[in-house]
Amino acid sequence: MNGYSPEKDDLLKRLRRIEGQVAGISRMVDDDRYCIDILTQVSAATKALQSVSLKLMDAHLAGCVVEAAKKGGPEADAKVKEASDAIARLVRS
Amino acid sequence: MNGYSPEKDDLLKRLRRIEGQVAGISRMVDDDRYCIDILTQVSAATKALQSVSLKLMDAHLAGCVVEAAKKGGPEADAKVKEASDAIARLVRS
Amino acid sequence: MNGYSPEKDDLLKRLRRIEGQVAGISRMVDDDRYCIDILTQVSAATKALQSVSLKLMDAHLAGCVVEAAKKGGPEADAKVKEASDAIARLVRS
Amino acid sequence: MNGYSPEKDDLLKRLRRIEGQVAGISRMVDDDRYCIDILTQVSAATKALQSVSLKLMDAHLAGCVVEAAKKGGPEADAKVKEASDAIARLVRS
Repeated sequence: MNGYSPEKDDLLKRLRRIEGQVAGISRMVDDDRYCIDILTQVSAATKALQSVSLKLMDAHLAGCVVEAAKKGGPEADAKVKEASDAIARLVRS
Repeated sequence: MNGYSPEKDDLLKRLRRIEGQVAGISRMVDDDRYCIDILTQVSAATKALQSVSLKLMDAHLAGCVVEAAKKGGPEADAKVKEASDAIARLVRS
Repeated sequence: MNGYSPEKDDLLKRLRRIEGQVAGISRMVDDDRYCIDILTQVSAATKALQSVSLKLMDAHLAGCVVEAAKKGGPEADAKVKEASDAIARLVRS
Repeated sequence: MNGYSPEKDDLLKRLRRIEGQVAGISRMVDDDRYCIDILTQVSAATKALQSVSLKLMDAHLAGCVVEAAKKGGPEADAKVKEASDAIARLVRS
């Protein structure tokens, strides 16, 4: 059981759509399409991936972090540290 | 008492340094310095501001969110929602 | 002929690898893997997409924008405006 | 003469506003204001700095890069390489 279980179907649907977007970008490159049109699609796929990240992070905070906080102790601190590190990776990616 | 209280001095020192960086960028523009050199300084100030955000967010999770989670109830949910929204603003800024 | 023609094979290889990364993330979600491990992979795929964007933008500036600038006139202005808009989308995605 | 000369006043006005925003954030920290309210202001200042970057980059492309492209030769290549590197710093900051 993960924090994102209730969102699993939605996440899988988003990820499959992104996989299709990336395959579409490959076809555009293969067909020598105009750089700016390809860049527009890459930006759209990047934004879609970031939405997946934000959804996973929400679920993680509401699920795993809240659970650990209730128990308290070093595990709570570890979960918060781990979430903070993941947020830093998100902001810098 | 805020989550960031133990980090207050460090945060204030960082913010003053960023204020100085932004004042320095104004002087560079005023002196007609080369665009790319100015851009390099703006990127550095932007990164420094993002580090402040990440520090505040860490403190918020470890302090306010963990506190609220321990109490449980609707306040815990509200805190998590508020943190998630702030993370989304961070990622998109 | 596009600005990115000499990089076409490299771009296609990167895009196929990203497609594989996204498919791998779907499998991780399907297998109920730990949120933070999935988030790490989503951040990696996001960074890989941004590298594709930067590569396309380099090729666009060195190819299409430089070509248009040599000819001058309104087309040069239009190309610069279009590149600036694409950079703004990159920075904000 | 720089690419951004016609925008100099606007850039200086924006930078002074950002300096004020950062000073305001210091006061909020000093006054122990709520983390999320501070984070909202830091995100706003970060976005304002990114707008300055985008404005400088537009001016750089329309001015310095187009000038260099017209002359051609190794200087044109160097300007494009320099702009690409600055765009990469923008995207990753």
